Amino acid sequence: MREFKVSEIAKLINSEVIGNSELIVRGIASFDEADEDDLTFFADGNLRDTRSKVVLLPKDSKVEFEDKTLMFVDNVYSAVVRIAYLFEEESYQPMISPHAVIYPNVKIGRDVTIREFVVIEEGTVIGDKVVIMPFVYIGKECVIGDGTIIFPGAIIHSRSMIGRNCRIGAGSVIGSDGFGYVEVDGKRVRIPHLGRVVIEDEVDIGANTTIDRGTFGSTVIGKGTKIDNLVQIAHNVKIGENCVFAAQVGISGSVRLGNKVMLGGQVGIADHAVIGDSVKVAAKSGVSGRVKDGEVLAGIPAISASKWKRVQAIISKLPEIYSKLRRGSGD
Amino acid sequence: MREFKVSEIAKLINSEVIGNSELIVRGIASFDEADEDDLTFFADGNLRDTRSKVVLLPKDSKVEFEDKTLMFVDNVYSAVVRIAYLFEEESYQPMISPHAVIYPNVKIGRDVTIREFVVIEEGTVIGDKVVIMPFVYIGKECVIGDGTIIFPGAIIHSRSMIGRNCRIGAGSVIGSDGFGYVEVDGKRVRIPHLGRVVIEDEVDIGANTTIDRGTFGSTVIGKGTKIDNLVQIAHNVKIGENCVFAAQVGISGSVRLGNKVMLGGQVGIADHAVIGDSVKVAAKSGVSGRVKDGEVLAGIPAISASKWKRVQAIISKLPEIYSKLRRGSGD
Amino acid sequence: MREFKVSEIAKLINSEVIGNSELIVRGIASFDEADEDDLTFFADGNLRDTRSKVVLLPKDSKVEFEDKTLMFVDNVYSAVVRIAYLFEEESYQPMISPHAVIYPNVKIGRDVTIREFVVIEEGTVIGDKVVIMPFVYIGKECVIGDGTIIFPGAIIHSRSMIGRNCRIGAGSVIGSDGFGYVEVDGKRVRIPHLGRVVIEDEVDIGANTTIDRGTFGSTVIGKGTKIDNLVQIAHNVKIGENCVFAAQVGISGSVRLGNKVMLGGQVGIADHAVIGDSVKVAAKSGVSGRVKDGEVLAGIPAISASKWKRVQAIISKLPEIYSKLRRGSGD
Repeated sequence: MREFKVSEIAKLINSEVIGNSELIVRGIASFDEADEDDLTFFADGNLRDTRSKVVLLPKDSKVEFEDKTLMFVDNVYSAVVRIAYLFEEESYQPMISPHAVIYPNVKIGRDVTIREFVVIEEGTVIGDKVVIMPFVYIGKECVIGDGTIIFPGAIIHSRSMIGRNCRIGAGSVIGSDGFGYVEVDGKRVRIPHLGRVVIEDEVDIGANTTIDRGTFGSTVIGKGTKIDNLVQIAHNVKIGENCVFAAQVGISGSVRLGNKVMLGGQVGIADHAVIGDSVKVAAKSGVSGRVKDGEVLAGIPAISASKWKRVQAIISKLPEIYSKLRRGSGD
Repeated sequence: MREFKVSEIAKLINSEVIGNSELIVRGIASFDEADEDDLTFFADGNLRDTRSKVVLLPKDSKVEFEDKTLMFVDNVYSAVVRIAYLFEEESYQPMISPHAVIYPNVKIGRDVTIREFVVIEEGTVIGDKVVIMPFVYIGKECVIGDGTIIFPGAIIHSRSMIGRNCRIGAGSVIGSDGFGYVEVDGKRVRIPHLGRVVIEDEVDIGANTTIDRGTFGSTVIGKGTKIDNLVQIAHNVKIGENCVFAAQVGISGSVRLGNKVMLGGQVGIADHAVIGDSVKVAAKSGVSGRVKDGEVLAGIPAISASKWKRVQAIISKLPEIYSKLRRGSGD
Repeated sequence: MREFKVSEIAKLINSEVIGNSELIVRGIASFDEADEDDLTFFADGNLRDTRSKVVLLPKDSKVEFEDKTLMFVDNVYSAVVRIAYLFEEESYQPMISPHAVIYPNVKIGRDVTIREFVVIEEGTVIGDKVVIMPFVYIGKECVIGDGTIIFPGAIIHSRSMIGRNCRIGAGSVIGSDGFGYVEVDGKRVRIPHLGRVVIEDEVDIGANTTIDRGTFGSTVIGKGTKIDNLVQIAHNVKIGENCVFAAQVGISGSVRLGNKVMLGGQVGIADHAVIGDSVKVAAKSGVSGRVKDGEVLAGIPAISASKWKRVQAIISKLPEIYSKLRRGSGD
């Protein structure tokens, strides 16, 4: 377990300290769950209500001392994240487990961690400082960029290209066959999927998410995009940069999304939709067709979120409106 | 394959028997799928329509004999469950497979089953009679309570605490990073997730379900709660006791649910919602905000289920209402 | 990498060639992603806009020559699929890995591929030409039909029966316990699930999909049915032949579906629903009760798709209608 003095943390986050700079901090925790030696933040309530002895506060806070050591910063959120990285014990020792099976013609970079029960097929290239946890399968001719972590049980099918500093969540499946069939002579025949998945740098993929390969071309996830758990991304989808998709989103085949698109949980996008930059879609909505840059949508089918709110307000009054109408019309 | 005499089963479930107590029963099956040597139940139809020779009936049933052996009980459901346990061949031989990789400082209780290709990291504690099936990963400093079964391919990330007599479904992921980012200097930065998942006793988790660790505190699943397949539970969620969530439910970050909450399939709960005890939510609904104890909700956004039904009835008449209005107003 | 002459491909797909029959084709790609040595198709735009030198066209196309080699066929789609199979390098070498653990009394057919880190339990029967990829678990007394491929990380629980020429996607879970509980003496008690899953011939299952075993009888997926990723199929569901389910569909317990049913993404079907043949359900809809053959449904709750469209058109006008009504009635 790691520990730091208040003075060390203060230097890192450039904060003013009132109280005891020599105190030892052993973690960071929310206001009501903090222990004595955890640093905490966001003192909505009374500082007496937290067990923590060290509290992070915005610079302009007016609080009394009350036995706590106080650390004042410009931006609490960003300070919290920097402190959290101090305590994250995510360090992986470079190793190649004798229990891993690595086929010939696999290129492996420097300081790589390949854990037990990993299978890597022929022709794959693993960058520097890549971490591959147990039960990960990597198919033929994949490329895994420097610094990427693949969590346990993720399956990377052949010819997938994953960029640098990505995080691929446990149990996720990258590069599975797309769901494409044609009728030939009255029979449903699978279309062989010869494309691949391309995941650019700094993409995070959650747990048990699925991303299908393109039929002939690529399914692309743009740089910096963050995808939560249990999300489905179908064949030939092209996703821009810095998008954010909440859990259980489903994106149908050949959809194109711009940059900075934000999708709430359980949103569905119909096939071949074209979504502009900075579009936001409320949870559970269903989107199809073309959506212009910057639009904010809600509903099934999705309409502008402001109109959706007005519509919902009226819908909730429908029983009254209807009974009034019936009285009025003498029905 | 197990087999029991009718007389043995009758003793177990305290039933009166009319017919042949010496018959051998080799399974239990539904009315139309039962074979000759299966016991069956729920004789809606004619007893001639089942191949089974042994039929379980409520005490007050008026049926004719018709060549069947009849077993009369107070509560058919509970008798069926007790008989089903007789036939469930879920017995696990204590063993620690030589193909498992167990790191130092792992404490292992009595009569534990650890199957092939399991990885258990340092500092983890495994209780008595725990069953860990193939391809299970258990991270550092986890605690697995007595009698818990972890099905194949489940991934338990570091510091997860799982109670006694839980069932963790195949492919489920417990303790994955929460989906939390902050913008620092215009860039989206991952918030390190230092919290954990706490699963209390007698919790069942289905297959391919995902439960994220808390950011700093814990994500908690209360005692006796039952969760189906493909469910998403985000960081810092607190779930009470004896809740039941159907498949594909999604619960966003920091939601609090009371006890005995029942969620239908594909329900979504928005972040920071606070849901009281014994709330029921119809399938596919979307809930946000505060919900009082005992409420029954439906719709997106969710409203009281009774009002939702009235609203839907009117919505389905909207085309007629609208054309009447247009005629009336001369549009 | 495979390569074929234009003349070889022309023979396979029975096409007329204008241009150079001796050209070498090394892949097949979409119009805008094709490289020089890829064959392409669907020349919507100007043939100059593709890098490909070989273009597949419908027989009646009027196009100018423009330096391309043109291949004319009756049915472009079916020709594309036949060519794609040429380039699909999905060939598996028969082998039984020394890193697989196969229990006694497992019957294994001819030309089977069993890869590293596979576990197969007692009493299971594996047909000819079956492919079992790494991290696959197959429980006791399963049957896997000839030519079936099980992708990495799929979990097949005991007594599942999988037909011939099926494809079971990575991370999918077949035969998990159904989600069934009864209250006995005020406590929620799990119902032991003694049934199984039966998957008939030529069924495709996507990635991370879950199919629960029947309580006592079977959960059945009919011949030729195709199921996408992250789909949930609950206990005792009976699905007919040649159905198609898009991603994230959820089917509740004891539902019965006819043949050729098509379900859009994220559709939910309530328990005990009975759905006829050739029913189509729009994405995100929620269906319950009985649905007749050939119906086309949309909405939550689902109604006829044509009525749903009319209703949605009116709903989107509700704000105007309402303000007109209020003016009219002097509210």
